[in-house]
Formats: sequence, structure tokens, C-alpha cells
Amino acid sequence: MACSSVRYGAGCTQEVGMDCKNLGAKKVCLMTDGNLVNLPPVKTAMESLERANVPYKIYDKVRVEPTDESFKHAIDFAKAENFDVFVAVGGGSVIDTCKAANLYSTDPEADLLDYVNAPIGKGLPVRHELKPLIAVTTTAGTGSETTGVAVFDYLPTQSKTGIAQRALRPTLGIVDPLHLQYMPERVTAYSGIDVLCHALESYTALPYNERSPAPTDPILRPAYQGSNPMSDIWCQHALRVTSKYIKRAVFDSDDLEARSAMHNASSYAGIGFGNSGCHLCHGMSYPIAGLVRDYKPEGYKGSGPIVPHGLSVCVTSPAVFRWTGSSCPERHIHSAEMLGADVTNVKKADAGRVLSDTLLKILDELKVPNGLEDVGYSSQDIPAMVKGALPQKRLLNLSPKPVEADHLSEIYENSMKIY
Amino acid sequence: MACSSVRYGAGCTQEVGMDCKNLGAKKVCLMTDGNLVNLPPVKTAMESLERANVPYKIYDKVRVEPTDESFKHAIDFAKAENFDVFVAVGGGSVIDTCKAANLYSTDPEADLLDYVNAPIGKGLPVRHELKPLIAVTTTAGTGSETTGVAVFDYLPTQSKTGIAQRALRPTLGIVDPLHLQYMPERVTAYSGIDVLCHALESYTALPYNERSPAPTDPILRPAYQGSNPMSDIWCQHALRVTSKYIKRAVFDSDDLEARSAMHNASSYAGIGFGNSGCHLCHGMSYPIAGLVRDYKPEGYKGSGPIVPHGLSVCVTSPAVFRWTGSSCPERHIHSAEMLGADVTNVKKADAGRVLSDTLLKILDELKVPNGLEDVGYSSQDIPAMVKGALPQKRLLNLSPKPVEADHLSEIYENSMKIY
Repeated sequence: MACSSVRYGAGCTQEVGMDCKNLGAKKVCLMTDGNLVNLPPVKTAMESLERANVPYKIYDKVRVEPTDESFKHAIDFAKAENFDVFVAVGGGSVIDTCKAANLYSTDPEADLLDYVNAPIGKGLPVRHELKPLIAVTTTAGTGSETTGVAVFDYLPTQSKTGIAQRALRPTLGIVDPLHLQYMPERVTAYSGIDVLCHALESYTALPYNERSPAPTDPILRPAYQGSNPMSDIWCQHALRVTSKYIKRAVFDSDDLEARSAMHNASSYAGIGFGNSGCHLCHGMSYPIAGLVRDYKPEGYKGSGPIVPHGLSVCVTSPAVFRWTGSSCPERHIHSAEMLGADVTNVKKADAGRVLSDTLLKILDELKVPNGLEDVGYSSQDIPAMVKGALPQKRLLNLSPKPVEADHLSEIYENSMKIY
Repeated sequence: MACSSVRYGAGCTQEVGMDCKNLGAKKVCLMTDGNLVNLPPVKTAMESLERANVPYKIYDKVRVEPTDESFKHAIDFAKAENFDVFVAVGGGSVIDTCKAANLYSTDPEADLLDYVNAPIGKGLPVRHELKPLIAVTTTAGTGSETTGVAVFDYLPTQSKTGIAQRALRPTLGIVDPLHLQYMPERVTAYSGIDVLCHALESYTALPYNERSPAPTDPILRPAYQGSNPMSDIWCQHALRVTSKYIKRAVFDSDDLEARSAMHNASSYAGIGFGNSGCHLCHGMSYPIAGLVRDYKPEGYKGSGPIVPHGLSVCVTSPAVFRWTGSSCPERHIHSAEMLGADVTNVKKADAGRVLSDTLLKILDELKVPNGLEDVGYSSQDIPAMVKGALPQKRLLNLSPKPVEADHLSEIYENSMKIY
């Protein structure tokens, strides 16, 4: 299996054991979290590995919203064994942690920061061979099963950062809608909105051919290259599917059609943003998640105070797109249209407002809290948030409009109350 | 570079040397044909390899419309050296030949027929590691830079067949629109129609979840899996782009916008049909090409009598889709609409006719010959054609309607004169 691909269909997780066998696996690292380890998706993977007589070891200590420490814990586990194939069963946190375990256990001398995005890390390009990684996604949000990105909280600077390297892309992503019925309502809502923002940010990101300076060596190209014709196809499709199914998927866990449509949409958007990249909503989301005080959303078991990723991303989206609207009005208007707005006679000058209003309507229908205040922040927190967002160069640089600290403050301010 | 990806943009061929260096290349096999070897695309690749100080050897004996013999010649060339990276610069014939050279030189004991599609070959799954292959496409048609397919004429049975294995998919496809200005009008027309048929056949192919029996082991899944949600995205997009740009691209070699749009469309369609698959037009095209007598189209230098692939494919398309229309009328009507037809008030019963008429209009505008008679065939040739088409099980099985010899005869008969 020399190239990365995606398999989807109800029950296709049952083949994961054969896939490992076909990859010549002698010892598989099966990664998941403490909650999923007792649920059918992991059981299905284990039974499949046993049917195929492929030896495996389970690591179920993955942290929801991983940190450098939880990454290191998983990396040490992988280093101690001699795994030849990695299988991640879970959401973005599990898959991202497994990517890190694969990356660093195959390059034992490397320091964690070597491959982490600059400026926090060195952002060195990966030049060694990783082991095959099969990513069985149990959420419909991150699209991590299709991307070369692994996100984590870097505790020393209290900032969210990540590793973005094509080499991290899973060998095989498995999208099995049967897993989605285990997603609580809020998890479905916030991961679904994450999909929506992946697609919107990628579709409105700085175009790939306006990024400069061009790298002298293709290996130095960022994994996030800016909006481009291929990514556009995926993002537009993901927007249409999301707009059609997200509400049904959130409020009816038995609506397999809607949930599997969202599952596919998250892969579509993942393939899109995985090579074009997100910008402000994601760049600004990291401090919102990182500085959390005591917000505890329902449905997020086994985690302390947390602002779920999708919530931390979407809460600024109305203000973000109102601000970016003037940079590429056609794409903002077209996005609003794909999200169900009537855009006949909309003037370019109103592009940002129209998309912003369309988003607000969707967020409201999905019962998203009313802005940063509802998740425990006040204007006093804005300087710290700006400080946390500024290092997210990889994302901020893809903003269709050059962005400075003042713009970030203004967007955070406008996101305190959104309705 | 563990996964296959596509790079596009004017001039991006200049990076191929660095790409090889980044792959650790010590000795590159640069494959092309006797015509291209003197043209800028190959020169650009050579200069790039030299700038990067990567040693390479050129093989320029690729045959347009390759045969088992021309494949073997290229394979022997590769076996004699110790290449660690393959670079193909050319159209489908060059890229397909390079895929075969890579596949068999990395498994020297294998017999050519081991990996060739059944029933002509054994269709064994590839289980060994191939060398990285970079495919620089100089035509906008086959999409071979994105697929795991290599097509050739098997001389002993005078039939077109191929190797369809995911492992053949190039590590990197390079889509550089600067190369397209070297495509003569007819080459642009026939390769452009090939794109159109790739997309149409894949979009109307038997759905992936109706293919049966399901293989017991995922490695036994055919590379062509039937129409599916991911492929649909690419095919629909390719149809819209093709319908918008093909005429401009064909009749104005200086229209870089149109030609690069078609270049991207061929990759889009390639990614689509590469995992869903074509059906009747392609399955029936092989004897049309294989039994050629004295047809010599303009613009095809250095080849004897030949029915260009795209022509052999599209000439039956009006009859094919008129016949398949009843199997999935919605998709036939939607295809006609994407190709510019007004489908308001079209009844499902007319789906096949409407798509067929839409195709005829396009073929006529592109000055495609008036059916099989114009390329030198008569009704007497039909039995031989049916005999040549029947072994194309991999393709015929994807027909949305079960197809027998009589149906093939009827379609060939209806394709003698198309206007």
C-alpha cells in the first residue's frame, strides 16, 4: 500500500486485520483512548486483528486534546516496542497521537520540537520512512484520517501547536459510519461545525499561487499551501453536504444517512484543508481552548474543563468572515449560497456580512453558546488570547487579508457575544 | 514521500530534480518517447536533474500505444540498471510503460502476465515495494499520472489489456500546463474526449456497493470499485470543466487558460475513474484500436496506422449511453445537464437519448469522424470486435446494465455512423 487512500462503508473496520496482514505486520500498535477502548469500534478492530492472527498491543492512554506530555507518553510506548504497523481507532486526538508515536519512534534520536511547526518548533522536513498507519475515525470532524497534521497543546508556552508534514498522512483512512452512533449530541455538533470551518477557511484561504516567497526546494513547501483548485472541489462539496445534513446528524443519532454523510464530509474537508490549510478561525481557536477556566460541555466524558475544538473554532467565525469578506467577496458570497442563503442581488460589499449572518443562523440552530462570554471569557482575556494566537503563523499567514494583533483583538472582541 | 499526490502549476516540472534528490535518488530512470525527447518538457526535466546533481539515464524508446513487447523492452532496460527513482515525462503511453518498468524491475522473477488483468493475465495482487515514480504528464487525457493503471496491446491475442493495481499509482504526478502547447489539435481533441468519457463512464458505472461478490480480503478488491461518493465528486467536476473548456482548448493552442483547465480536468477524472472505473466505451474501444487497418489521423507523429485511444473510446459513446440510460436515468440526465444540455422537463424514459444527443453535439463540434465507418470499419468487423471486447471483464462488469455479446454487437452496429 504505497499510497494513502480512504475506505468507507458500514462495517469496513472489520477488514483492518487483513489490511495489517497485507502490510506484513508482525506486531501492531493499536491506539485509542480510555473511553473508546470499551466500545464497539475498538472491539471490532481487535476481533479483526485476532481473526487475521496479527499480534497487537493496545495503548489506550490517549488524552483528549493531547499535550506534548501525552504525546511523549505515547511515543515512549511505541519506542519500547518494535511495531511495524500503527492502527489508530478514535477521533482526532487518537489519530494525531498515533501519528506522533509513528513519527518519533521511527526517528528515535529526534527531539519532539524538531518536527513541530515553527516558531515553537524547528519545523524540520521529515526525511525518514515512517511505518504504515491505518486511521479508523470514530468522529466526523477533524478529518485527521486524511491529513498530515497532528495538533497538541505545548504546555511550556500554554499554546496549541502542531506537526504538519505530508509524511504523517495515514496510509489508509477508514471511514465506517457504524461508529458514529456513539457520538453524543454536542460532540456531533462541535465536530460537525469543525468540518464546516475547515471547508470555509480553506475555500477562502490565500490562493496557493499568491503565497510568497516560493520555497527553494519542494520539500520545504508547507503542508498548508493555500486555496487551490483541487482543495476547492473538496471544500465546496463538504460545504454543500454539511449544510444539508448537519442538523439532522446532530439531533438524531439514529439518522445513519445524515451521520454518515457528515462522516464523509469530514473526510472531504480533510482532504481539502489538508493541502490548502485553514486560517483565522483555527489560528484564533488555540488560545480559546488553551486558556479554558472551568467550562465543561455536556457529552465530553473523562475530560476536565475543556472548550471543545469545534466550539473554539466556530465561535469567532461570524466575526472572522465579516472581516475577511472584502478580500475575496465572490468566494464569501458563494459560500453563503452553498450554506443555503439566498444571495440573489447581494452586493460584493456585503459579502462578509451575508456569510456571517448565514453562519450565525446555523450556529444558533445547533445551540452553540452565545460567544466567548458564554464559555467563560471576558474582554480582559483578549490580550492573552492575541498573544496565544500570534505564534500560529502557519495559519495566520493563510488569512486572505494580512492580519495584525489589532485585527485579532477586534475579532475576539466582536466574538464575546455573537447573537 | 510516502503517499501519492499531484502538483500542478506552470513551471513546476523544474522541481523534479529536487524531488528526486529528496527521495534519495542515486540513479534516476527518465522515460519518454522518441518525439518528446527533443521537446522542452524533457529538456526541463533533464536540466532540473542536472541542477540537483542527480545522475540519470534516459530511455526514449517508449511506443505510442504500448505492447507487451514494448513493455518488455522498457522492463529489460530497467532491470539492467539499478534505478532507485523513475521519472516518466510524456502522455499515457510513457507513464504506463514507466509503471510497468518499475513494477517488474522491482520483482525480477515475475512473469509479465502475473500482474496483468484476468482473464488474459493472472491478476495477482502486488505485494512487493515499488520504487518511487514521478509522472510528468504532457497530455491532458489519460490521467495516468494519478492512476494505478497501465494499458497495453497484448500481441499474442491481439487484444488491449492492462495492469490495474493501486501499487502502480505514481508517488507524485506533475501537471504543468506549459507542456500542453506542444499538443496538436487532434491530440488535444481525442485526449480531451477521453477525459470526458472517463468521467461519464465512472459517474454512471455500477455503484461500488452493488458489486458482488465482495472480496474476502481487501487486497483482492479491484482497483476499479464502481461509482462511489468520492469518485463522483471528481467526475462531476471534470464534466463541468470539460464542457466549459474543451472546445477552446482544442482549437486554440495558445489558450493557456483552457488548456490548463483541461489538464487539471484530466487529473480530476483520473482520480475519479482511477478508483471507480470505466465501463463500456473503454471496454469496447480496445478492439477498435487493436484491429486498425490503415487509419492515420493527423497530428500523430511517428506512429503507423492508429485509432487514437480517445477516438476509439468516444466513437461508441452515443450508442453506449443511449443503451445504459435506463439503468440510472437520474445520472444520465444530470450528466447531460453538466455537459450543457437544457434538461428541464426531460422524462426519465428519455435519459439515454438526451445524454446521447448532448454527446453527439460535442463530438460534432470537435470534428470527430462520423462513426466506425469513417475510421475504416464495416459491419463485417463486428464479430471480431465483440470477440475482442468480451475479455474486458474488468470494464464490462462495471456496466450499469448487465451486458452480453448481442448488446455489444448492437452498440457497435449503432456506432457505424453516428451523425
